[in-house]
Amino acid sequence: MSNDVITFAHGSGGRAMQQLIQDTLVRHFDNPFLRRGEDQARLPLTQLASQGSQLAMTTDSFVIDPIIFAGGDIGKLAVCGTANDLAVGGARPEYLTCSLILEEGLPLATLDTIIASMAATAQQAKIEIVTGDTKVVGHGCADKIFINTTGIGVISPEVHWGMDQIAADDAIIVTGNLGDHGAAILNERENLGLGDQLVSDCALLWPLVEPLLSIRGIHTLRDATRGGVNAILHEFATASGLGMQINEHALPVNDAVRGMCELLGLDPLNLANEGKLVIITSAQSAAAVLNALQAHPLGKDARQIGTVNSQSGVQICGAYGVTRHLDLPYFEPLPRIC
Amino acid sequence: MSNDVITFAHGSGGRAMQQLIQDTLVRHFDNPFLRRGEDQARLPLTQLASQGSQLAMTTDSFVIDPIIFAGGDIGKLAVCGTANDLAVGGARPEYLTCSLILEEGLPLATLDTIIASMAATAQQAKIEIVTGDTKVVGHGCADKIFINTTGIGVISPEVHWGMDQIAADDAIIVTGNLGDHGAAILNERENLGLGDQLVSDCALLWPLVEPLLSIRGIHTLRDATRGGVNAILHEFATASGLGMQINEHALPVNDAVRGMCELLGLDPLNLANEGKLVIITSAQSAAAVLNALQAHPLGKDARQIGTVNSQSGVQICGAYGVTRHLDLPYFEPLPRIC
Repeated sequence: MSNDVITFAHGSGGRAMQQLIQDTLVRHFDNPFLRRGEDQARLPLTQLASQGSQLAMTTDSFVIDPIIFAGGDIGKLAVCGTANDLAVGGARPEYLTCSLILEEGLPLATLDTIIASMAATAQQAKIEIVTGDTKVVGHGCADKIFINTTGIGVISPEVHWGMDQIAADDAIIVTGNLGDHGAAILNERENLGLGDQLVSDCALLWPLVEPLLSIRGIHTLRDATRGGVNAILHEFATASGLGMQINEHALPVNDAVRGMCELLGLDPLNLANEGKLVIITSAQSAAAVLNALQAHPLGKDARQIGTVNSQSGVQICGAYGVTRHLDLPYFEPLPRIC
Repeated sequence: MSNDVITFAHGSGGRAMQQLIQDTLVRHFDNPFLRRGEDQARLPLTQLASQGSQLAMTTDSFVIDPIIFAGGDIGKLAVCGTANDLAVGGARPEYLTCSLILEEGLPLATLDTIIASMAATAQQAKIEIVTGDTKVVGHGCADKIFINTTGIGVISPEVHWGMDQIAADDAIIVTGNLGDHGAAILNERENLGLGDQLVSDCALLWPLVEPLLSIRGIHTLRDATRGGVNAILHEFATASGLGMQINEHALPVNDAVRGMCELLGLDPLNLANEGKLVIITSAQSAAAVLNALQAHPLGKDARQIGTVNSQSGVQICGAYGVTRHLDLPYFEPLPRIC
């Protein structure tokens, strides 16, 4: 029985941990960097670097509950989430680390499923998982499994996306329906039984971002995770000192999410996404950006939802043409969403 | 009251999280990379890279219990541990990420103490903490605070340390007393009351490693954390297919740790260290390595403890000249040691 679940022995630096690393982690993630078995991965720096390139580095710990959900699992999410945080800076995701905190008693089969999902997602993205760490804590000292992934990638010299580029009259674009991830997790966690149309949008966004690299006039982009599109717009407004005006009727929301939000009094703007970008681009480039996005399945519902203006904060123009300020909630309605 | 402890709001992507990040994290870690506020740090890649350099990358999640202990705290440990995993590859630690998993109810004052300790340790090491992440989970879903740090550094072209360099007749050197960290944690956690001489050796090892870069004949080094020196020797033996023979009477152990081990039937070879290296070097270079180590306060008790031979596994030569094989325990006696 003790062979089938995580025990303290798996986190102790002894033989049990070596076995777990070999049988579960190295087996799924197998690559020359991991196989060296040193305390640090050694990566070909000069091969990555061309004159003027920047190294992008990002980290995320994933604590989502439930760990397996419609549209993904914590492993897929841990690869997509960190890869996407590189992609939105214009960096091709190259290398990822994987650090696990496991609760004593976690079934090894569950761990294997999650690690296999990470490996498959990384392989799809051509990302290597090059080093890792495993810790085990007692029953009740963590909830099943937490995963940290930290990623690096390279930003080409010609890419200078950032919030400092945002200007008045820029277009605000989203790449598809809002709130799918948050709605799916809420449905599962609270057993709302709202049907199988609530599916997380968890996806790798680099394929959608890469064609944007060659379009001039893009100022910044961000994936709208915790806090939803609303949190991103507030970040943009604060960083730029400008106003973000969006049109309520332009917001793409699928029917199942809209129905749940009406039922529970939630706003899809505040719900988390795991496969949607918010893009700020010059007005002249907006059509080219929308064309590039809509050419990819992940961006087929892309649309302009508003405009940057010289006011401040986030303004929403509602059904009767009335504009009101949109606050950033003190907290998002749903903890442990990622 | 809710202002004084961590609540779900601090992890939700809303205003409360922004405040926590500004007031606690950016305030202590302040640097231009963090201040940009993008989803990924952007680092000067070409400045790091010279022809033939390698990028070292390593990750560690810290779950130590207790979070504050004689000789350190989880914050200091999270910086030292990851920086040391870079240093043992010959990489100068350059940049670190910091990802927090916080339990609802953690006092903000405790968090501030830990973050300040991370910042002070990083500053001492001239390491920048360039990006981060904060998650909050419910009471009972994590134990106070878990910290992931992931680090990168650069290995110069002339450094080729690795387990594949280990050869028969090499010298086995340790840089000081064994088991200090494990003994200190055990004493505190179990309230053994064995006095104030049990202090963790948690320390940044780069200052001890840097002078070794210019010594030819060093084959590999490792910091002996979880599983102690015994686990490292087993790793070396397995990777090289050679035997690691050590002399029991040569092992440096301070009196307090030796006393505790005798009392509890533990072996200092299996206890964790957080500031000790195991070094494999050619026999000809052993004296030069010992001289370099002993010139630094962290290495003043350095000594040769054995020799690599053409047998296999780990052998220990005891008091009466009898040699026996040393097993790697199935698990280390103490969970959550780092």
